[in-house]
Amino acid sequence: MINFPHKIAIIGVGLIGGSIAVGLKEHFGRKITILGSCSDPQRAQLAKNKGIIDAVFPRNGRIGKDVELVIIATPVLAIQSVLKTLKTATSGDSLIMDVGSTKHSIRQLAEAVLPEKLSFVGTHPMAGKEASGFEHADPHLFRNKSWIICPTKKTRKKDLYLLKQLITILGANPIIMDPATHDEIVAWASHIFLAMADILVGAAARQNAWKMIAKIASTGFRDTTRLASHNPEMKRDIILTNKENILRALVVIREEIDKFSCVLSDGRENKLLAYLTKTKQIRDQWITTYFS
Amino acid sequence: MINFPHKIAIIGVGLIGGSIAVGLKEHFGRKITILGSCSDPQRAQLAKNKGIIDAVFPRNGRIGKDVELVIIATPVLAIQSVLKTLKTATSGDSLIMDVGSTKHSIRQLAEAVLPEKLSFVGTHPMAGKEASGFEHADPHLFRNKSWIICPTKKTRKKDLYLLKQLITILGANPIIMDPATHDEIVAWASHIFLAMADILVGAAARQNAWKMIAKIASTGFRDTTRLASHNPEMKRDIILTNKENILRALVVIREEIDKFSCVLSDGRENKLLAYLTKTKQIRDQWITTYFS
Repeated sequence: MINFPHKIAIIGVGLIGGSIAVGLKEHFGRKITILGSCSDPQRAQLAKNKGIIDAVFPRNGRIGKDVELVIIATPVLAIQSVLKTLKTATSGDSLIMDVGSTKHSIRQLAEAVLPEKLSFVGTHPMAGKEASGFEHADPHLFRNKSWIICPTKKTRKKDLYLLKQLITILGANPIIMDPATHDEIVAWASHIFLAMADILVGAAARQNAWKMIAKIASTGFRDTTRLASHNPEMKRDIILTNKENILRALVVIREEIDKFSCVLSDGRENKLLAYLTKTKQIRDQWITTYFS
Repeated sequence: MINFPHKIAIIGVGLIGGSIAVGLKEHFGRKITILGSCSDPQRAQLAKNKGIIDAVFPRNGRIGKDVELVIIATPVLAIQSVLKTLKTATSGDSLIMDVGSTKHSIRQLAEAVLPEKLSFVGTHPMAGKEASGFEHADPHLFRNKSWIICPTKKTRKKDLYLLKQLITILGANPIIMDPATHDEIVAWASHIFLAMADILVGAAARQNAWKMIAKIASTGFRDTTRLASHNPEMKRDIILTNKENILRALVVIREEIDKFSCVLSDGRENKLLAYLTKTKQIRDQWITTYFS
């Protein structure tokens, strides 16, 4: 442990913030102190009682000079509000990082509002569950997942080293990326599936026969629409702050539906089989490379 | 055990046929004999060696008078070929059932080609896995799943009782439905998700940044596209024999994408949140009712 912060504040102790807390605790034990806040102060107290964090600090309270690292783990729009308060809330020269799912809008705001002495890095761990809240915190949530780091004009060079250390301790793989590129790539790696899960549920539930459809639907419906059960506020924030990339991706998916429908309505068996075989190969290869 | 067939033939010992075999064996032990065939005779021999079936019979061989129940468990287009051979292959008055995923075209063919003395029922167990082959056979695959029964003009009344018994033994819930209604309902309960998984993989893999997208994609991509890894021949058969319903569903999904895109491009936060909240409620309710 070289120069790892001894006191860390997590603003927003939910699934991600809580998992970071228990992951760091598993590694460092009592060598570090983790403060935490929740939008609902009673929830923060509960997180303390459950041993997820060591102490509660008020959401809009001052962050002491001795807090070397501040992790903002709220939904994306709330990250923006928190960033605006940090000018008056911090007195030291802490490193501020966030773990929100979109990065371009956060980078712009951070560069505009954060005081000179604070260092800031945007990050995005590619991990999640449909359940939210620190009750589902899991020290191994990030294991073998990618964790994207988006440096900004306000990032001190030495902090990138610290960040990579933190990510590696939690078992994830750090990848450095420009914030705008991050948002484009992640629209396709993740956000478009949030939108499509809801769109598929919306379309199915609109059918007159929905009650019977629901009765006989099975694991295919369950897995394809899993993301529709995620927290809607969190999804709204992600979708709104990555709106342009998601709208573009939806256009591409419409085009792909048209292409598929053409092959099908022509009844070209071999072309249909070729399409299905190709996509199976792509997904199987992806699973082999990244999930086995 | 009242009048349950003592000798059963399964044509197509794959995941479904194999799971029926091991499920019945678990219940009846040596009281029943299960014959099986595969398109590849060596595979059938392997299934026998593994104890999935008791004996092999040739795919195009004669089915003895003492075989009271014939279960056709091949992909849908192969079911059609098998039905055509049954006139000469059977000498008794067996009950023939299939377990294919579409029912209307099979019903039409069965009514047209099967000899008078044979009884026929179409069925569809709503269960599956992305892995195929009897190596993945599981006696509990059907537990708590729906198993649809589609009677035809060629169904003897007493056979419906036998069929419900078989389905209940395997732990599933029988639902009786007209074949055309089945295909409409199942297009939305299952088949459209087969198509959409491939369409989503196809669209994502077409992006210039696919390599990086693949690198950081995580459980959201994995689950939403799980069905893209299913056997492509099986999917082709399903999609082709339920073409009209699937094409109609794809049009509805396009419309839903347009609706979602409108809400998003207007940037109406509350309307977006209302949409996401509603679909979460629908899916959560579905999970609570059918998966807990």
